[in-house]
Amino acid sequence: MPLLVVGSVALDTVETPQDRREDVIGGSAVHFSYAASFFTSVRLVGVVGEDWPGEYTEMLNSRGIDTDGLTVVPGGKTFRWSGKYLPNMNDRETLDVQLNVFGEFDPVLPDAYKKCSFIFLANGSPTLQHKVLDQIEGAHLTVADTMDLWINTERDALVELLKRIDGLVLNDSEALLLTGEKNLVKAGHVVREMGPKFVVIKKGEHGAMFFSQYETYVLPAYPTDQVVDPTGAGDTFAGGMMGYLAQQGKFDPKTLKEAMGYGILAASFNVEGFSLDRLKEIDNDALAKRMDEYKQMLTF
Amino acid sequence: MPLLVVGSVALDTVETPQDRREDVIGGSAVHFSYAASFFTSVRLVGVVGEDWPGEYTEMLNSRGIDTDGLTVVPGGKTFRWSGKYLPNMNDRETLDVQLNVFGEFDPVLPDAYKKCSFIFLANGSPTLQHKVLDQIEGAHLTVADTMDLWINTERDALVELLKRIDGLVLNDSEALLLTGEKNLVKAGHVVREMGPKFVVIKKGEHGAMFFSQYETYVLPAYPTDQVVDPTGAGDTFAGGMMGYLAQQGKFDPKTLKEAMGYGILAASFNVEGFSLDRLKEIDNDALAKRMDEYKQMLTF
Repeated sequence: MPLLVVGSVALDTVETPQDRREDVIGGSAVHFSYAASFFTSVRLVGVVGEDWPGEYTEMLNSRGIDTDGLTVVPGGKTFRWSGKYLPNMNDRETLDVQLNVFGEFDPVLPDAYKKCSFIFLANGSPTLQHKVLDQIEGAHLTVADTMDLWINTERDALVELLKRIDGLVLNDSEALLLTGEKNLVKAGHVVREMGPKFVVIKKGEHGAMFFSQYETYVLPAYPTDQVVDPTGAGDTFAGGMMGYLAQQGKFDPKTLKEAMGYGILAASFNVEGFSLDRLKEIDNDALAKRMDEYKQMLTF
Repeated sequence: MPLLVVGSVALDTVETPQDRREDVIGGSAVHFSYAASFFTSVRLVGVVGEDWPGEYTEMLNSRGIDTDGLTVVPGGKTFRWSGKYLPNMNDRETLDVQLNVFGEFDPVLPDAYKKCSFIFLANGSPTLQHKVLDQIEGAHLTVADTMDLWINTERDALVELLKRIDGLVLNDSEALLLTGEKNLVKAGHVVREMGPKFVVIKKGEHGAMFFSQYETYVLPAYPTDQVVDPTGAGDTFAGGMMGYLAQQGKFDPKTLKEAMGYGILAASFNVEGFSLDRLKEIDNDALAKRMDEYKQMLTF
């Protein structure tokens, strides 16, 4: 089934101890879409400026990502993010953020998108995420991401959002911030009790945890020794997870766990190159092969 | 097969945001031995002072832990450690260390111990660990732990030790410190190339990684929401792992992975209470039950 994603589309400038890339394709909706495109067709809603390279759009289209929902603002400039990774490749410093056209992003869904069954609200303000949900007609599964900024500045809107969605994906420090808990397992369940049927806590290089009324589990990250650029790993995780769920057309516990695995593996490839570089090199066979290794690793 | 452990025996004073315990039984060899005693008989080599409560020794004996190698120094005082956990229950501050009789610890193995097939050198100086190995006659499997202090102060002796042992267990920050690497997967293999056939990197609440010439894998920690006192979790991990290996009498890849699992689960119980409190409450059935849950969690 097709998968709808609404989120940021950006030009990133990334610096690591070894290397640097300028104005590469990035943004939550882009990393998400590319990862999801291994599994299903994607409909992307976002906004860019006139400086957005047409070949980036063509590249997305070539992956079965529908960009009819990608608005190009005449005379506008695309959202730009610039960051620098510390030698441990986990911690990073944001050097510059220019919201540009993303600052006034007011997503209007093309009619053809409104009946999408699988919805992902990539990182954006809860107010904006509510606006998207208002346009959706009878979704099957609605999952959102959030971040510390919105927990701190739009807590009420976020708490309301949690009652409207089926799943929430957030990272470890955000889960602690949102709940005031100190223990991640407790935090996961507290977030779940705020509304969503399931909660996924991303732990970066340590994998991801899953919480539902019936299950609590953690799956480790795939151990890679080639960490080139972690930018977008969380969105790539969500894209792999949601892409697989949309492909399967269901989200029972078994399918959800498989989806968690595919999310983790998509993210493990993502960090092995700048931007989408590494994901562009692989095909579904490479993903399937790593899944075999991953399952083997966890079997004893 | 019996398992020999040489390490510290201590009286710990532990403060957490919720509670405090004074002069409870602790030390690397104690946590190790207790965890291992679920699987096999243990021979403990250590040193205490006259202030060591006799009932602690009796409790260890009741678990099949042979304390003929536990020297009581007349007029001496037992090693004391005191620490305080921060609210996240991972970071801690050492408030006080009194080495006392452990400062002059010069382990002499009872003759009956020298032919032990499974050996664990719990945290101690590499010089002391070498002295123990010098007394061993034809061990089957020799594994050591180490820590940042020895990496910084006795690096040469540690590097020599790595050539004499089959396995090394250390934590994540220590692996990075020892190798100068920034990536844990790389660090694990670099340590392995320094001598041991296998290396285990402990990641605390994030589980443990395994490295051999043939395998690289990571297993997550068991997700517990009851973290009362993490003191000794690393030694408990090692005790569960080595105890299982000694019980099985072998250390092929499959057995090693099972052993990693039992180490992780023993540690997950350890953190659920102060000192040995939680481990004292459980039996082998509880361990087996959690192992079933753990395997289930990792199956998809």
